[in-house]
Amino acid sequence: MILSGKTALVLGGARSGKSSFSERLAQATGLERHYVATGRAYDDEMRERITRHQDDRGPSWVTHEEPVELTRTLGAIDAPGRVVLVDCLTLWVTNLMMQGEDIPARSAQLAAQLSTFEARIIFVSNEVGLGIVPENKMAREFRDHAGRLHQQVAAVVDEVFFVAAGLPLRMKG
Amino acid sequence: MILSGKTALVLGGARSGKSSFSERLAQATGLERHYVATGRAYDDEMRERITRHQDDRGPSWVTHEEPVELTRTLGAIDAPGRVVLVDCLTLWVTNLMMQGEDIPARSAQLAAQLSTFEARIIFVSNEVGLGIVPENKMAREFRDHAGRLHQQVAAVVDEVFFVAAGLPLRMKG
Amino acid sequence: MILSGKTALVLGGARSGKSSFSERLAQATGLERHYVATGRAYDDEMRERITRHQDDRGPSWVTHEEPVELTRTLGAIDAPGRVVLVDCLTLWVTNLMMQGEDIPARSAQLAAQLSTFEARIIFVSNEVGLGIVPENKMAREFRDHAGRLHQQVAAVVDEVFFVAAGLPLRMKG
Repeated sequence: MILSGKTALVLGGARSGKSSFSERLAQATGLERHYVATGRAYDDEMRERITRHQDDRGPSWVTHEEPVELTRTLGAIDAPGRVVLVDCLTLWVTNLMMQGEDIPARSAQLAAQLSTFEARIIFVSNEVGLGIVPENKMAREFRDHAGRLHQQVAAVVDEVFFVAAGLPLRMKG
Repeated sequence: MILSGKTALVLGGARSGKSSFSERLAQATGLERHYVATGRAYDDEMRERITRHQDDRGPSWVTHEEPVELTRTLGAIDAPGRVVLVDCLTLWVTNLMMQGEDIPARSAQLAAQLSTFEARIIFVSNEVGLGIVPENKMAREFRDHAGRLHQQVAAVVDEVFFVAAGLPLRMKG
Repeated sequence: MILSGKTALVLGGARSGKSSFSERLAQATGLERHYVATGRAYDDEMRERITRHQDDRGPSWVTHEEPVELTRTLGAIDAPGRVVLVDCLTLWVTNLMMQGEDIPARSAQLAAQLSTFEARIIFVSNEVGLGIVPENKMAREFRDHAGRLHQQVAAVVDEVFFVAAGLPLRMKG
């Protein structure tokens, strides 16, 4: 699979292979690769997941850790000849919620930024809305924020993929 | 996207854009629009969701609130030249469970009714079976009822869509 | 739908119709049908689900109950002129976890076995990674194991289907 547009969103469930697929997409561009990790290592389990992802990815990436100020970091990285992989939007939403940020405003800002972005960019995100309604109110709010952000990003990117069992399904583009 | 058949089922996760997509489908028919809301406002959060949906939808719909007697209400609304949007089947199942109704019988009745329906009809429903098995027994039963109803309705409608991130994927038709 | 390859993986949610679809795939081959049930009846609810599945399936199957030693059982059943339906991989993973088995090793062994398998084989499995991150650590581990196994099996089989509302979506093959 090769990126045919400039911007893409890759959705998938936990351990669906969405990150690996996105890394292969980025690699196939032949451009200078930048990785924006939005995850914060709150505990050992999370730290272990982050480390495993880095190991899987290999050394040929410039890594940026940015849990909150995603648009600012993307603005600083942006340049022609680069491909930027943001992994992942759902962790960004989690961090924004933790800090009480205005998520609709942040989401709109991100979507708007894409129209002038010069690098190629691939967003990875977890689809989290296909289970039973969570009993936890914060989980329901998270699900709503993530779902709305996915709709906003999907509306402006060139390509959208849904990944399951490592296999991509093209939803747009 | 334009409805090519008379009857459709639109499945999707929470905040997937399935309702907006279904409203656009209904609007594109150019027919007199009827909206059947199955949700019951048990609490403020639910009331807020219902109100937001109504605001999003705008005033050009005849709205019917029917949490339980769905087939009776559909029978009363049915007429050529109309399009009926039922939002959503999973809330109907919830209400049936709360009242201890015979859900397989109700589901079969709904599926049977579609064969003689004269209006166009679009059912919206939440796909809820793609997460971890819920620890709560009632949630597991709900999941089973919803899944079986989806299969029954999908078998008889002309078109089925799966919506994620606001993007429809055609599953049937 | 007809199996076009020798090996297939059928993914879907709870009550998605994935088992019925897989049984029809197996039946359409016209070969001698073998059913490998990996589920263990821990409680009445589970026993009832297993019995209902057997009733739905009818008597024209040779049934093998194998909760743990899946590759050994598959090796013993394997023969040309047969079709084997394994229902399901997620229950197998559950049983392996309960016994503290080495799941990555077992998964790799299963994937390797497929290259020399002479019967046709269809694996059914639950997609469980599309809901909110479970609060329970064991549920998160289960989700990870299941997701990795799906990726491994999907990479080696000829065909992969995703089933929702009884409708198959071809992901591979």
